[in-house]
Amino acid sequence: MLSVLKTKSTLILPKFDLESGITLHSVEVVYKTWGTLNSARNNVMVVCHPFTGNVDADEWWGTLMGRGRAFDPTRFFIFCANVLGSPYGTSSPVSINPSSGRRYGPEFPDTTIRDDVRLHKLVLDYLGVSSVAVVIGGSMGGMAALEWPLCFPGFVKRIIPMATCAKHSAWCIGWGEAQRQAIYSDAAFQGGYYERQPTSGLAAARMAGLLTYRSRDSYEQRFGRRTVQSPDQQKAQDKKGLTEDTNRPLYSAQSYLLYQGAKFAAKFDANCYIHITHKMDTHDITRDRVPPGLDEAQALSLVLGELPAHALILSIDTDGLCLPVEQKILADGIPKAELATISSLAGHDGFLVECERINDIVVAYLRRQLQQFYGDGGNQVNSTQLVGLF
Amino acid sequence: MLSVLKTKSTLILPKFDLESGITLHSVEVVYKTWGTLNSARNNVMVVCHPFTGNVDADEWWGTLMGRGRAFDPTRFFIFCANVLGSPYGTSSPVSINPSSGRRYGPEFPDTTIRDDVRLHKLVLDYLGVSSVAVVIGGSMGGMAALEWPLCFPGFVKRIIPMATCAKHSAWCIGWGEAQRQAIYSDAAFQGGYYERQPTSGLAAARMAGLLTYRSRDSYEQRFGRRTVQSPDQQKAQDKKGLTEDTNRPLYSAQSYLLYQGAKFAAKFDANCYIHITHKMDTHDITRDRVPPGLDEAQALSLVLGELPAHALILSIDTDGLCLPVEQKILADGIPKAELATISSLAGHDGFLVECERINDIVVAYLRRQLQQFYGDGGNQVNSTQLVGLF
Repeated sequence: MLSVLKTKSTLILPKFDLESGITLHSVEVVYKTWGTLNSARNNVMVVCHPFTGNVDADEWWGTLMGRGRAFDPTRFFIFCANVLGSPYGTSSPVSINPSSGRRYGPEFPDTTIRDDVRLHKLVLDYLGVSSVAVVIGGSMGGMAALEWPLCFPGFVKRIIPMATCAKHSAWCIGWGEAQRQAIYSDAAFQGGYYERQPTSGLAAARMAGLLTYRSRDSYEQRFGRRTVQSPDQQKAQDKKGLTEDTNRPLYSAQSYLLYQGAKFAAKFDANCYIHITHKMDTHDITRDRVPPGLDEAQALSLVLGELPAHALILSIDTDGLCLPVEQKILADGIPKAELATISSLAGHDGFLVECERINDIVVAYLRRQLQQFYGDGGNQVNSTQLVGLF
Repeated sequence: MLSVLKTKSTLILPKFDLESGITLHSVEVVYKTWGTLNSARNNVMVVCHPFTGNVDADEWWGTLMGRGRAFDPTRFFIFCANVLGSPYGTSSPVSINPSSGRRYGPEFPDTTIRDDVRLHKLVLDYLGVSSVAVVIGGSMGGMAALEWPLCFPGFVKRIIPMATCAKHSAWCIGWGEAQRQAIYSDAAFQGGYYERQPTSGLAAARMAGLLTYRSRDSYEQRFGRRTVQSPDQQKAQDKKGLTEDTNRPLYSAQSYLLYQGAKFAAKFDANCYIHITHKMDTHDITRDRVPPGLDEAQALSLVLGELPAHALILSIDTDGLCLPVEQKILADGIPKAELATISSLAGHDGFLVECERINDIVVAYLRRQLQQFYGDGGNQVNSTQLVGLF
């Protein structure tokens, strides 16, 4: 089996002007690439990560990556960059504010999906990319996939937005606020100026988030009303301070969420969580892009019509967060778009869970739409070169 | 228009043995009745309230109550009692523990839906009720509607469970835990020994709860991406300390949830919230009622088969908490049950929102199934008597 070439790099820019008008100084952007840029510098595949993701697309979307797979580094130069406000390397609330010498914390300025796209485009410019063959992303990554060609008309040939929407819905705005409130209420949060993470509030927020990412039926199938039998397991939870000291049974669903909540709170950052939920709240592809006087439907129709034709829109039939109706709006509005609906119990997370089916759909689509990169067994890198690299 | 007779009463019992084996002393039960018990003492309609409800069924289900309506006090003796652990009168964490002279707080013992039913039955015994014509309830009230005939076989003629389930699902167990964690993380919670309510955590829990009670489409229709324009409204939110001090727009969905969360936290009690979610976690009509060796489906089939025939099961097609599949299980298992599905954007809360349609369905059902109470224009109370009462 072919291993995959990995690189991980950081670019530091002297400054970057945000959409809000605020300027960030000494801006770091962390990114990874796989494969090699061709001589035309256009065999570029941009992978956009979701909310709590990072640049390790070969891990969280690993099933899709490899020779013959959707993310084929023998055909494409694959690029994944970390978004602003994420704790995984790119400038964020956990970065040092050069003007104060301390962490930004809650003072890190608001950013938008468009800021991420414009920042990542600077990295592509630095790498000498002439155009992008395809942008792929799910959930928040799908929002970026929609924004790429709108921010840089003509620069992107195809997009594959999955489990996403043209505008963040009232439903999602509501969930973001409910989760932020759980963090704000944590004793340790201190208005964002915390010494230690507000782990309890962050875990509670994550638990609600995780539920919205799945479906009722997936929980029922996986957990039902089963309880955790082992007193050791229960004791382990008690030690984390997340359960009450009682003789109540610990249900498996409850135990799973407690474990996942604590695990997440140990690796993520509360201010980053708050920052990114606010970022998603701003997502609306029509914002500042339509003349006054249009109604919502007209505005949406106008902007969707500007997206590159022949997009592949992917939908999970049980998605309870970005509902299938939202992907249908995309498919109806983007010229000659294809809509692929995957039937799965997994809910919103289906775009991460149903990787084999997604891989097959994406590979077939790429072979149809980007034939120039499928002329031979891999158009840029020969096997001798590859052997040397791994 | 006819006004409705109201009574609100409290019964204090010297002691009550819980299902857990723990005995509560000086137990209070708050209840309300409407109408008059007939000479056979059997024209009894029991209305069971949902999670955060109370005995004022004429308020939260007011559309259903009145002459000619589903809850017709000229035909039925209507009874609604507050559940154990609720802050609205019946013994709960906010009651005084007679053995300490202080509030029970987090030491109030766990209770089950069956405890509520057995406690409320004692009130009916006190009132001289010989049998119950129909038990009606939605959500947690529907759990009680299922438990009544199982706790007292032969005592109940008909049941109308709405938006409910035979067993609390992994999904609902998970949501309960996520909401409890938001409360636990509040600085003010202090393990349940608080002086003032942990309003921030309780509000965050309520916000998540409210979202699960509705549907994505209902939020989209009501709020979309609209923002709250008035600076006064925004200032009002800021004063409550629930929003951050920023120049971000306040979305209408966000503003609505913040308002509802704060309103709820001002009138409910955090320990009661925790108590009742644990109570619902225990709901499983098969618990301790089937011989060993049966699988889940066999156990469910056996117990559903013991419920009174001709139940009316009510389902909301967009219910995302107790999904329609759960009401179908009830309708398939209860002998000769009828399933009525209401199409509504309202989600789980549809059983409270779609009152006109529910009223029509319930009235038609009662006229069919309980003909003896529909022989004339109202069988117990003549209008002269009524005039004197209001």
